[in-house]
Amino acid sequence: MKDLLVDKSSGNDIKVKVRDTIIGGNEKVIISGPCSVESYEIMVNIAKSLKVMGVNMLRGGAFKPRTSPYDFQGLQYEGLKILSEVSKKVDIPVVTEVMDIRDIEEVIKYADMVQIGSRNMYNYPLLKELGKINVPILLKRGISATLSEWLYAAEYIIIGGNENVVLCERGIRTFESYTRNTLDLNSVAVIKEKYRLPVIVDPSHGTGLRELVPAMSLASIAAGADGLIIESHINPDNSVSDARQTISLDSLKEIINNIQKLKRSL
Amino acid sequence: MKDLLVDKSSGNDIKVKVRDTIIGGNEKVIISGPCSVESYEIMVNIAKSLKVMGVNMLRGGAFKPRTSPYDFQGLQYEGLKILSEVSKKVDIPVVTEVMDIRDIEEVIKYADMVQIGSRNMYNYPLLKELGKINVPILLKRGISATLSEWLYAAEYIIIGGNENVVLCERGIRTFESYTRNTLDLNSVAVIKEKYRLPVIVDPSHGTGLRELVPAMSLASIAAGADGLIIESHINPDNSVSDARQTISLDSLKEIINNIQKLKRSL
Amino acid sequence: MKDLLVDKSSGNDIKVKVRDTIIGGNEKVIISGPCSVESYEIMVNIAKSLKVMGVNMLRGGAFKPRTSPYDFQGLQYEGLKILSEVSKKVDIPVVTEVMDIRDIEEVIKYADMVQIGSRNMYNYPLLKELGKINVPILLKRGISATLSEWLYAAEYIIIGGNENVVLCERGIRTFESYTRNTLDLNSVAVIKEKYRLPVIVDPSHGTGLRELVPAMSLASIAAGADGLIIESHINPDNSVSDARQTISLDSLKEIINNIQKLKRSL
Amino acid sequence: MKDLLVDKSSGNDIKVKVRDTIIGGNEKVIISGPCSVESYEIMVNIAKSLKVMGVNMLRGGAFKPRTSPYDFQGLQYEGLKILSEVSKKVDIPVVTEVMDIRDIEEVIKYADMVQIGSRNMYNYPLLKELGKINVPILLKRGISATLSEWLYAAEYIIIGGNENVVLCERGIRTFESYTRNTLDLNSVAVIKEKYRLPVIVDPSHGTGLRELVPAMSLASIAAGADGLIIESHINPDNSVSDARQTISLDSLKEIINNIQKLKRSL
Repeated sequence: MKDLLVDKSSGNDIKVKVRDTIIGGNEKVIISGPCSVESYEIMVNIAKSLKVMGVNMLRGGAFKPRTSPYDFQGLQYEGLKILSEVSKKVDIPVVTEVMDIRDIEEVIKYADMVQIGSRNMYNYPLLKELGKINVPILLKRGISATLSEWLYAAEYIIIGGNENVVLCERGIRTFESYTRNTLDLNSVAVIKEKYRLPVIVDPSHGTGLRELVPAMSLASIAAGADGLIIESHINPDNSVSDARQTISLDSLKEIINNIQKLKRSL
Repeated sequence: MKDLLVDKSSGNDIKVKVRDTIIGGNEKVIISGPCSVESYEIMVNIAKSLKVMGVNMLRGGAFKPRTSPYDFQGLQYEGLKILSEVSKKVDIPVVTEVMDIRDIEEVIKYADMVQIGSRNMYNYPLLKELGKINVPILLKRGISATLSEWLYAAEYIIIGGNENVVLCERGIRTFESYTRNTLDLNSVAVIKEKYRLPVIVDPSHGTGLRELVPAMSLASIAAGADGLIIESHINPDNSVSDARQTISLDSLKEIINNIQKLKRSL
Repeated sequence: MKDLLVDKSSGNDIKVKVRDTIIGGNEKVIISGPCSVESYEIMVNIAKSLKVMGVNMLRGGAFKPRTSPYDFQGLQYEGLKILSEVSKKVDIPVVTEVMDIRDIEEVIKYADMVQIGSRNMYNYPLLKELGKINVPILLKRGISATLSEWLYAAEYIIIGGNENVVLCERGIRTFESYTRNTLDLNSVAVIKEKYRLPVIVDPSHGTGLRELVPAMSLASIAAGADGLIIESHINPDNSVSDARQTISLDSLKEIINNIQKLKRSL
Repeated sequence: MKDLLVDKSSGNDIKVKVRDTIIGGNEKVIISGPCSVESYEIMVNIAKSLKVMGVNMLRGGAFKPRTSPYDFQGLQYEGLKILSEVSKKVDIPVVTEVMDIRDIEEVIKYADMVQIGSRNMYNYPLLKELGKINVPILLKRGISATLSEWLYAAEYIIIGGNENVVLCERGIRTFESYTRNTLDLNSVAVIKEKYRLPVIVDPSHGTGLRELVPAMSLASIAAGADGLIIESHINPDNSVSDARQTISLDSLKEIINNIQKLKRSL
């Protein structure tokens, strides 16, 4: 793993700009929203509340990778359009996942940032294609990707010409079953120490349990993360997917306050 | 995981036919060949030797998923054409990997069976597309996919109308670093006990060490596997990829003999 | 890991003699019996049946390491005495677990072989003490011990002067939850290839599911194991511990027959 | 896992007192010192410096559990005496590991707190014995113990009458090999949420890399940990064991300052 474009020795630390938000700079960026886009009504209400409390970006899944083909696969293009309308209405940038290489062209008409989910971190044709466009990419760590494999996945994008890559630690698969995944904050410390890319943390998937999200959000920032991506909902228990790990907007507000206090102390 | 098309309760055990070879029937099917297609000369020589010793199918990678973008990515379409010519010349069916959904249409003109590698087991758009065509699929287990996720991946293909799916256990990622992966033969026993799909084993990736391939080939068949996929080469040490786990043709011949003896005893 | 006493280069392969049974020789040794010693009546009935079908040794736990302090901890010394009486009555050697260094002296009065369970593989004072006595040791692999750590554990015993060590693969802890553990038969192949010690397999703990025990018993022998240790019971469903992985005596008989057939073919 | 003595529902949160230091109260407790006790001279110098910078307790291994029997096994009783003399000289309480049940009686004459290392977390006879004495116990998580197994290990001690148990998260074994272990801070958040015991974190073993210790120390406290145990040395590179993860005293001082600032913000 010598002489990669992601190494600190290859240049200055990368800052990724998504509209007015800079990831990898001084600010701790907060991305939030529901797991799946459910309807315009729900989405616009969530987005307005998030905007008021200072959330930087809105997240929401239109194309949902699901273990079972019998589970809800997302609203697809309809979801994408809802996301885009809400984004304009509330004036907040949006990030959403792309799973299919054939969707990229269309998705980037609607989204400000493209997410590559854990299941697609090894999807090299998809990564190569994203290297050719000039759109910010949120690259989640594979479910059991080594740090090295994850960084090489970023390299696949950057080598193509698109340096706008933000890494996202979202927990790895281990023997521990109390939590959905094991959030590996060591990875954040390593990335901040040795590599040029910004890194944010997803404590929602990293724990799978909403009651752990506040503590692990703080821990992530203390480990050096440049921001957080947190699943939130007006009515978490009614969330169509990932309800168990989705927090309320009140809980999110408290986390944001605590992050601000923590940040001032560091 | 109730009422899936892959459950034994949903129908008879599935037998997958690749030209004259039936996977999931009485015969223990042997698939072999080099990791990557390197040249027509090498490939045709290997294929002739394999054919003579009774190997059922030829394998060879044209599109190679590599952790590093700086590593050899395969001969791509040139490799595919070599594979196809060798297949005709030697009269042996071929299996090769598809990574990019946009390549499917072209690849199935050349290959008798399409392999989905570990890195793409969660690539649901790819799986859905393969469900629409009538070509045999070799579905490798994801690097750290649970048995349940793997079976759902097969379900994604079958639900689309293509029942011709062969599972391939290739080892899972664990803390053990002596071997490249931990070959999980429990999975083979479970599949033969509860599910309708044929399953073969890849002891080359499952161990990463050529000296372990003979013993683990026998163990796989004893666990109930319907066949094996083994990396072999005329000159293993000169293999352009995976040399450490590639066996010689002599070694392969001995394995095949031992499998025959074992099979008669079961 | 150079120049260890367990390396093949340090001497001939070790054969461990337990009364008339030789582990590591030509015969595939079968050790069986219930998880826990429950009563003299049950134990003597099981032992008689096992003896008739050619089982070489009887197993039975008197001191039971249990995750919860509220679970049955074994009959302790009472269990040990039952085991010893049954052993004499039926003329079959017995193996039982020692957890407490202070019990060694007493246990070896009753048992022919001492088992070190997975939880105590790293208990170095215990291993050192066992190196000083001349009793055969069955050394189970730690729940997530690397191959290297396991071999060093054996080295701790052998360096003290007691070469009578039999390794026992019993599955490792991974993310896969369908099975209780992931039986790592790669480890068997490595040991037979590079190390001097006999190795047997425990497919009961290695799978945790009785329906997988027959297939994985065969796979273990095919991988090169010198024998098996299998939990069996006259009435498996009434077993006080590990019922789900305990097989019936009929099932054991069939496994033994299949092992004999397999052995002749190898 | 219902109705355990470790559950919050079973009583007030437990505070463990080691001389004047209270673990589980308002203060974030810092325990530090070298991996192994090497000599009186080195130890007393380290201890004096630690005392000055406000470190609450001194750590140092006299009995060292080592994977290889050929590695340095610690100064044993000589180390214990050094530790005790330094403790008196500098007036700082000490914690040291016990591996052998037969050493407990002697060790507690010298140490203020007894550590159970990862390799002995499943050593139930040892845990039971510690339940009978009235000495504070530092119970490290097993190398791949589930949260549930770890809490049950604490229960084994508490049920015997000794409630003075402090848990210590020290990283778990995963596939990731960049770091020595994967520090699982989710476990800290769970323990603070649901259980009565204090929990501290060992970022030295949890990362294995000294450059990651500062960031992971902060992350641990932010996740809710009651303190830290950190390997430090006057001359880290000359440390006889674990040099790669041992930090300098200057680095420790900076960490302590940052922890104080962080604590005020929470």
